[in-house]
Amino acid sequence: MGQNDILDAFRSAMRHVAATVYAVTTGHDGERFGILATAVSSLSFDPPSLLVCINRAGSLHEPIASTDRFCVNVLGVGNRDVADCFARGGTGEERFSIGDWVEEQGVPVLASAQSSLVCRIAHRHAFGTHTIIIGELIAARHRENAKPLTYYDGRYIDITEAPDQQP
Amino acid sequence: MGQNDILDAFRSAMRHVAATVYAVTTGHDGERFGILATAVSSLSFDPPSLLVCINRAGSLHEPIASTDRFCVNVLGVGNRDVADCFARGGTGEERFSIGDWVEEQGVPVLASAQSSLVCRIAHRHAFGTHTIIIGELIAARHRENAKPLTYYDGRYIDITEAPDQQP
Repeated sequence: MGQNDILDAFRSAMRHVAATVYAVTTGHDGERFGILATAVSSLSFDPPSLLVCINRAGSLHEPIASTDRFCVNVLGVGNRDVADCFARGGTGEERFSIGDWVEEQGVPVLASAQSSLVCRIAHRHAFGTHTIIIGELIAARHRENAKPLTYYDGRYIDITEAPDQQP
Repeated sequence: MGQNDILDAFRSAMRHVAATVYAVTTGHDGERFGILATAVSSLSFDPPSLLVCINRAGSLHEPIASTDRFCVNVLGVGNRDVADCFARGGTGEERFSIGDWVEEQGVPVLASAQSSLVCRIAHRHAFGTHTIIIGELIAARHRENAKPLTYYDGRYIDITEAPDQQP
Protein backbone atom coordinates (compact mmCIF):
# COMPACT_ATOMS: atom_id res chain seq x y z
CA MET A 1 0.00 0.00 0.00
CA GLY A 2 1.52 3.32 -1.09
CA GLN A 3 1.96 6.35 1.14
CA ASN A 4 -0.50 8.33 -0.98
CA ASP A 5 -3.16 5.63 -0.67
CA ILE A 6 -2.69 5.61 3.09
CA LEU A 7 -2.97 9.40 3.27
CA ASP A 8 -6.09 9.48 1.07
CA ALA A 9 -7.84 6.82 3.14
CA PHE A 10 -6.79 8.52 6.38
CA ARG A 11 -8.18 11.88 5.22
CA SER A 12 -11.47 10.25 4.13
CA ALA A 13 -11.70 8.44 7.45
CA MET A 14 -11.24 11.64 9.44
CA ARG A 15 -13.69 13.63 7.29
CA HIS A 16 -16.40 11.07 7.98
CA VAL A 17 -16.46 11.17 11.76
CA ALA A 18 -18.21 13.77 13.89
CA ALA A 19 -15.91 16.58 14.97
CA THR A 20 -16.78 18.86 17.84
CA VAL A 21 -15.57 22.39 17.17
CA TYR A 22 -13.32 23.93 19.80
CA ALA A 23 -11.83 27.41 20.03
CA VAL A 24 -8.42 26.97 21.66
CA THR A 25 -7.15 30.25 23.05
CA THR A 26 -4.27 31.70 24.98
CA GLY A 27 -2.89 35.04 26.06
CA HIS A 28 0.68 36.20 25.79
CA ASP A 29 2.28 39.61 26.35
CA GLY A 30 -1.11 41.27 26.62
CA GLU A 31 -2.34 39.87 23.31
CA ARG A 32 -4.95 37.19 22.66
CA PHE A 33 -4.57 34.31 20.24
CA GLY A 34 -6.90 31.53 19.17
CA ILE A 35 -7.65 28.88 16.59
CA LEU A 36 -10.47 26.53 15.71
CA ALA A 37 -9.50 22.97 16.47
CA THR A 38 -11.04 19.54 16.31
CA ALA A 39 -8.01 17.49 17.42
CA VAL A 40 -8.87 17.62 21.11
CA SER A 41 -9.27 14.62 23.39
CA SER A 42 -9.98 14.06 27.02
CA LEU A 43 -7.02 12.26 28.59
CA SER A 44 -7.57 11.43 32.26
CA PHE A 45 -9.95 12.26 35.10
CA ASP A 46 -7.12 11.92 37.64
CA PRO A 47 -5.83 14.53 37.31
CA PRO A 48 -8.54 16.08 35.12
CA SER A 49 -6.64 16.60 31.88
CA LEU A 50 -6.98 16.81 28.13
CA LEU A 51 -4.78 17.19 25.12
CA VAL A 52 -4.84 19.29 21.98
CA CYS A 53 -2.78 18.80 18.81
CA ILE A 54 -1.45 22.10 17.49
CA ASN A 55 0.04 22.63 14.03
CA ARG A 56 3.53 24.05 14.41
CA ALA A 57 3.00 26.14 11.26
CA GLY A 58 -0.19 27.71 12.67
CA SER A 59 -0.68 31.04 14.40
CA LEU A 60 -1.28 29.59 17.87
CA HIS A 61 1.89 27.57 18.12
CA GLU A 62 4.32 30.30 19.09
CA PRO A 63 2.04 31.96 21.65
CA ILE A 64 1.17 28.63 23.26
CA ALA A 65 4.87 27.70 23.33
CA SER A 66 5.57 30.91 25.23
CA THR A 67 2.97 30.56 27.93
CA ASP A 68 1.80 27.93 30.41
CA ARG A 69 -1.97 28.26 30.09
CA PHE A 70 -4.71 27.90 27.52
CA CYS A 71 -8.46 27.47 27.30
CA VAL A 72 -10.45 24.91 25.34
CA ASN A 73 -13.79 26.56 24.59
CA VAL A 74 -16.33 23.94 23.51
CA LEU A 75 -18.46 25.84 20.99
CA GLY A 76 -22.22 25.48 20.94
CA VAL A 77 -24.52 26.09 17.97
CA GLY A 78 -25.07 29.60 19.35
CA ASN A 79 -21.37 30.31 18.86
CA ARG A 80 -21.45 29.78 15.11
CA ASP A 81 -20.57 33.48 14.59
CA VAL A 82 -17.41 33.00 16.67
CA ALA A 83 -16.46 29.91 14.64
CA ASP A 84 -17.00 31.82 11.39
CA CYS A 85 -14.92 34.75 12.68
CA PHE A 86 -12.04 32.46 13.66
CA ALA A 87 -12.31 30.61 10.34
CA ARG A 88 -11.95 33.84 8.38
CA GLY A 89 -8.42 34.06 9.79
CA GLY A 90 -7.03 37.43 10.72
CA THR A 91 -4.35 37.67 13.32
CA GLY A 92 -4.55 37.83 17.09
CA GLU A 93 -7.07 40.40 18.27
CA GLU A 94 -9.13 40.41 15.06
CA ARG A 95 -10.45 36.97 15.93
CA PHE A 96 -11.84 38.23 19.24
CA SER A 97 -13.95 41.00 17.66
CA ILE A 98 -17.06 38.78 17.84
CA GLY A 99 -18.27 36.96 20.96
CA ASP A 100 -18.52 37.65 24.68
CA TRP A 101 -14.89 37.03 25.59
CA VAL A 102 -13.72 37.54 29.14
CA GLU A 103 -10.34 37.01 30.77
CA GLU A 104 -9.96 34.24 33.31
CA GLN A 105 -6.65 33.07 34.78
CA GLY A 106 -4.90 35.07 32.06
CA VAL A 107 -6.56 33.38 29.08
CA PRO A 108 -9.53 34.34 26.88
CA VAL A 109 -12.72 32.50 27.85
CA LEU A 110 -15.90 32.65 25.78
CA ALA A 111 -18.61 33.28 28.37
CA SER A 112 -21.38 31.84 26.15
CA ALA A 113 -19.46 28.72 25.12
CA GLN A 114 -21.04 25.36 25.86
CA SER A 115 -18.09 24.53 28.11
CA SER A 116 -14.89 26.29 29.14
CA LEU A 117 -11.89 24.21 30.14
CA VAL A 118 -9.00 26.32 31.42
CA CYS A 119 -5.74 24.39 31.56
CA ARG A 120 -2.19 24.68 32.79
CA ILE A 121 0.27 23.09 30.38
CA ALA A 122 1.73 19.94 31.92
CA HIS A 123 3.67 18.54 28.97
CA ARG A 124 4.46 19.12 25.31
CA HIS A 125 5.47 16.52 22.74
CA ALA A 126 6.37 17.31 19.13
CA PHE A 127 5.45 14.78 16.43
CA GLY A 128 5.38 15.29 12.68
CA THR A 129 3.90 18.68 11.84
CA HIS A 130 2.19 19.05 15.21
CA THR A 131 2.82 19.41 18.93
CA ILE A 132 0.67 17.55 21.44
CA ILE A 133 -0.09 19.83 24.38
CA ILE A 134 -1.27 18.17 27.58
CA GLY A 135 -3.29 20.46 29.82
CA GLU A 136 -4.31 19.91 33.42
CA LEU A 137 -7.61 21.60 34.20
CA ILE A 138 -7.47 24.49 36.66
CA ALA A 139 -11.01 25.74 36.03
CA ALA A 140 -14.00 24.31 34.18
CA ARG A 141 -17.56 25.38 33.50
CA HIS A 142 -20.36 23.66 31.62
CA ARG A 143 -23.67 25.22 30.59
CA GLU A 144 -26.79 23.08 30.70
CA ASN A 145 -28.97 22.57 27.59
CA ALA A 146 -25.90 21.96 25.50
CA LYS A 147 -26.08 21.95 21.71
CA PRO A 148 -22.52 21.37 20.55
CA LEU A 149 -21.37 22.83 17.25
CA THR A 150 -20.45 19.75 15.26
CA TYR A 151 -18.71 19.42 11.90
CA TYR A 152 -19.28 16.40 9.70
CA ASP A 153 -18.35 15.79 6.07
CA GLY A 154 -17.76 19.46 5.32
CA ARG A 155 -20.79 21.00 7.02
CA TYR A 156 -22.07 22.03 10.43
CA ILE A 157 -24.82 19.85 11.84
CA ASP A 158 -27.05 19.92 14.93
CA ILE A 159 -26.48 16.54 16.53
CA THR A 160 -29.11 17.12 19.19
CA GLU A 161 -31.67 16.66 16.39
CA ALA A 162 -30.13 13.37 15.21
CA PRO A 163 -32.36 10.33 15.71
CA ASP A 164 -31.32 7.46 17.95
CA GLN A 165 -29.40 4.78 16.12
CA GLN A 166 -31.46 1.58 16.00
CA PRO A 167 -29.50 -1.60 16.70
CA MET B 1 -12.95 26.46 42.35
CA GLY B 2 -12.67 23.06 44.03
CA GLN B 3 -11.24 19.94 42.42
CA ASN B 4 -14.64 18.23 42.59
CA ASP B 5 -16.32 21.14 40.81
CA ILE B 6 -13.68 21.00 38.09
CA LEU B 7 -14.12 17.26 37.66
CA ASP B 8 -17.93 17.51 37.55
CA ALA B 9 -17.85 20.24 34.92
CA PHE B 10 -15.22 18.37 32.90
CA ARG B 11 -17.30 15.18 32.91
CA SER B 12 -20.42 17.10 31.85
CA ALA B 13 -18.46 18.84 29.11
CA MET B 14 -17.17 15.56 27.70
CA ARG B 15 -20.57 13.85 27.90
CA HIS B 16 -22.11 16.60 25.79
CA VAL B 17 -19.90 16.41 22.73
CA ALA B 18 -20.23 13.89 19.90
CA ALA B 19 -17.97 10.88 20.35
CA THR B 20 -17.14 8.60 17.46
CA VAL B 21 -16.87 5.00 18.63
CA TYR B 22 -13.64 3.19 17.84
CA ALA B 23 -12.61 -0.40 18.44
CA VAL B 24 -8.89 -0.29 19.20
CA THR B 25 -7.33 -3.72 18.76
CA THR B 26 -4.00 -5.46 18.92
CA GLY B 27 -2.53 -8.93 18.79
CA HIS B 28 0.05 -10.39 21.13
CA ASP B 29 1.36 -13.94 21.54
CA GLY B 30 -1.32 -15.32 19.24
CA GLU B 31 -4.16 -13.70 21.18
CA ARG B 32 -6.40 -10.80 20.20
CA PHE B 33 -7.30 -7.88 22.45
CA GLY B 34 -9.56 -4.91 21.98
CA ILE B 35 -11.48 -2.13 23.67
CA LEU B 36 -14.06 0.47 22.74
CA ALA B 37 -12.53 3.92 22.81
CA THR B 38 -13.55 7.47 22.11
CA ALA B 39 -10.30 9.23 23.11
CA VAL B 40 -8.78 9.06 19.64
CA SER B 41 -7.47 12.02 17.67
CA SER B 42 -5.80 12.55 14.34
CA LEU B 43 -2.36 14.04 14.93
CA SER B 44 -0.52 14.81 11.70
CA PHE B 45 -0.77 14.10 7.97
CA ASP B 46 3.04 14.12 7.66
CA PRO B 47 3.64 11.42 8.61
CA PRO B 48 0.03 10.16 8.69
CA SER B 49 -0.45 9.58 12.40
CA LEU B 50 -3.00 9.51 15.18
CA LEU B 51 -3.09 9.04 18.92
CA VAL B 52 -5.20 7.04 21.32
CA CYS B 53 -5.43 7.44 25.11
CA ILE B 54 -5.45 4.08 26.86
CA ASN B 55 -6.39 3.52 30.50
CA ARG B 56 -3.51 1.79 32.27
CA ALA B 57 -6.01 -0.15 34.41
CA GLY B 58 -7.82 -1.48 31.32
CA SER B 59 -7.46 -4.81 29.54
CA LEU B 60 -5.72 -3.41 26.45
CA HIS B 61 -2.87 -1.70 28.24
CA GLU B 62 -0.60 -4.63 28.84
CA PRO B 63 -1.00 -6.17 25.36
CA ILE B 64 -0.44 -2.82 23.66
CA ALA B 65 2.60 -2.20 25.86
CA SER B 66 4.04 -5.52 24.65
CA THR B 67 3.62 -5.01 20.92
CA ASP B 68 4.42 -2.39 18.32
CA ARG B 69 1.19 -2.38 16.30
CA PHE B 70 -2.50 -1.70 16.72
CA CYS B 71 -5.58 -0.96 14.66
CA VAL B 72 -8.11 1.82 15.10
CA ASN B 73 -11.36 0.48 13.64
CA VAL B 74 -13.82 3.33 13.06
CA LEU B 75 -17.18 1.71 13.75
CA GLY B 76 -20.18 2.39 11.55
CA VAL B 77 -23.84 2.05 12.52
CA GLY B 78 -23.74 -1.44 10.97
CA ASN B 79 -21.15 -2.45 13.58
CA ARG B 80 -23.42 -1.81 16.54
CA ASP B 81 -23.34 -5.55 17.37
CA VAL B 82 -19.56 -5.40 17.63
CA ALA B 83 -19.75 -2.35 19.90
CA ASP B 84 -22.29 -4.10 22.12
CA CYS B 85 -20.12 -7.24 22.26
CA PHE B 86 -17.04 -5.22 23.27
CA ALA B 87 -19.09 -3.26 25.80
CA ARG B 88 -20.24 -6.46 27.51
CA GLY B 89 -16.62 -7.04 28.51
CA GLY B 90 -15.24 -10.52 28.50
CA THR B 91 -11.57 -11.06 28.00
CA GLY B 92 -9.48 -11.33 24.88
CA GLU B 93 -11.00 -13.69 22.34
CA GLU B 94 -14.57 -13.43 23.68
CA ARG B 95 -14.78 -9.91 22.29
CA PHE B 96 -14.04 -11.16 18.77
CA SER B 97 -16.89 -13.69 18.69
CA ILE B 98 -19.05 -11.21 16.75
CA GLY B 99 -18.00 -9.39 13.59
CA ASP B 100 -16.01 -10.16 10.41
CA TRP B 101 -12.54 -9.88 11.91
CA VAL B 102 -9.49 -10.59 9.74
CA GLU B 103 -5.80 -10.39 10.49
CA GLU B 104 -3.72 -7.74 8.76
CA GLN B 105 -0.13 -6.92 9.62
CA GLY B 106 -0.54 -8.98 12.78
CA VAL B 107 -3.50 -7.06 14.21
CA PRO B 108 -7.27 -7.69 14.15
CA VAL B 109 -9.05 -5.61 11.53
CA LEU B 110 -12.85 -5.44 11.27
CA ALA B 111 -13.51 -5.91 7.54
CA SER B 112 -16.90 -4.17 7.69
CA ALA B 113 -15.73 -1.20 9.75
CA GLN B 114 -16.26 2.26 8.31
CA SER B 115 -12.49 2.77 8.30
CA SER B 116 -9.48 0.71 9.35
CA LEU B 117 -6.32 2.49 10.42
CA VAL B 118 -3.43 0.11 11.08
CA CYS B 119 -0.59 1.76 12.97
CA ARG B 120 2.95 1.13 14.13
CA ILE B 121 3.58 2.59 17.58
CA ALA B 122 5.93 5.55 17.32
CA HIS B 123 5.82 6.86 20.88
CA ARG B 124 4.19 6.31 24.27
CA HIS B 125 3.69 8.89 26.99
CA ALA B 126 2.16 8.14 30.39
CA PHE B 127 0.03 10.80 32.06
CA GLY B 128 -2.34 10.42 35.00
CA THR B 129 -4.29 7.19 34.70
CA HIS B 130 -3.66 6.87 30.96
CA THR B 131 -0.96 6.35 28.37
CA ILE B 132 -1.00 8.31 25.11
CA ILE B 133 -0.04 6.01 22.25
CA ILE B 134 1.10 7.70 19.04
CA GLY B 135 0.65 5.51 15.96
CA GLU B 136 2.04 6.06 12.49
CA LEU B 137 -0.26 4.62 9.82
CA ILE B 138 1.10 1.67 7.86
CA ALA B 139 -2.21 0.73 6.20
CA ALA B 140 -5.57 2.47 5.92
CA ARG B 141 -8.90 1.73 4.29
CA HIS B 142 -12.11 3.73 4.16
CA ARG B 143 -15.52 2.50 2.97
CA GLU B 144 -17.74 4.88 1.06
CA ASN B 145 -21.29 5.68 2.23
CA ALA B 146 -20.06 6.07 5.78
CA LYS B 147 -22.47 6.21 8.70
CA PRO B 148 -20.29 6.51 11.78
CA LEU B 149 -21.49 5.06 15.06
CA THR B 150 -21.69 8.10 17.31
CA TYR B 151 -22.27 8.37 21.04
CA TYR B 152 -23.81 11.49 22.54
CA ASP B 153 -25.20 12.11 26.01
CA GLY B 154 -25.48 8.45 26.88
CA ARG B 155 -26.99 7.10 23.65
CA TYR B 156 -26.06 6.09 20.14
CA ILE B 157 -27.23 8.45 17.41
CA ASP B 158 -27.15 8.49 13.62
CA ILE B 159 -25.45 11.78 12.77
CA THR B 160 -26.00 11.34 9.04
CA GLU B 161 -29.67 12.08 9.77
CA ALA B 162 -28.88 15.25 11.73
CA PRO B 163 -30.10 18.47 10.08
CA ASP B 164 -27.67 21.17 9.00
CA GLN B 165 -27.02 23.72 11.70
CA GLN B 166 -28.47 27.08 10.68
CA PRO B 167 -26.24 30.06 11.37
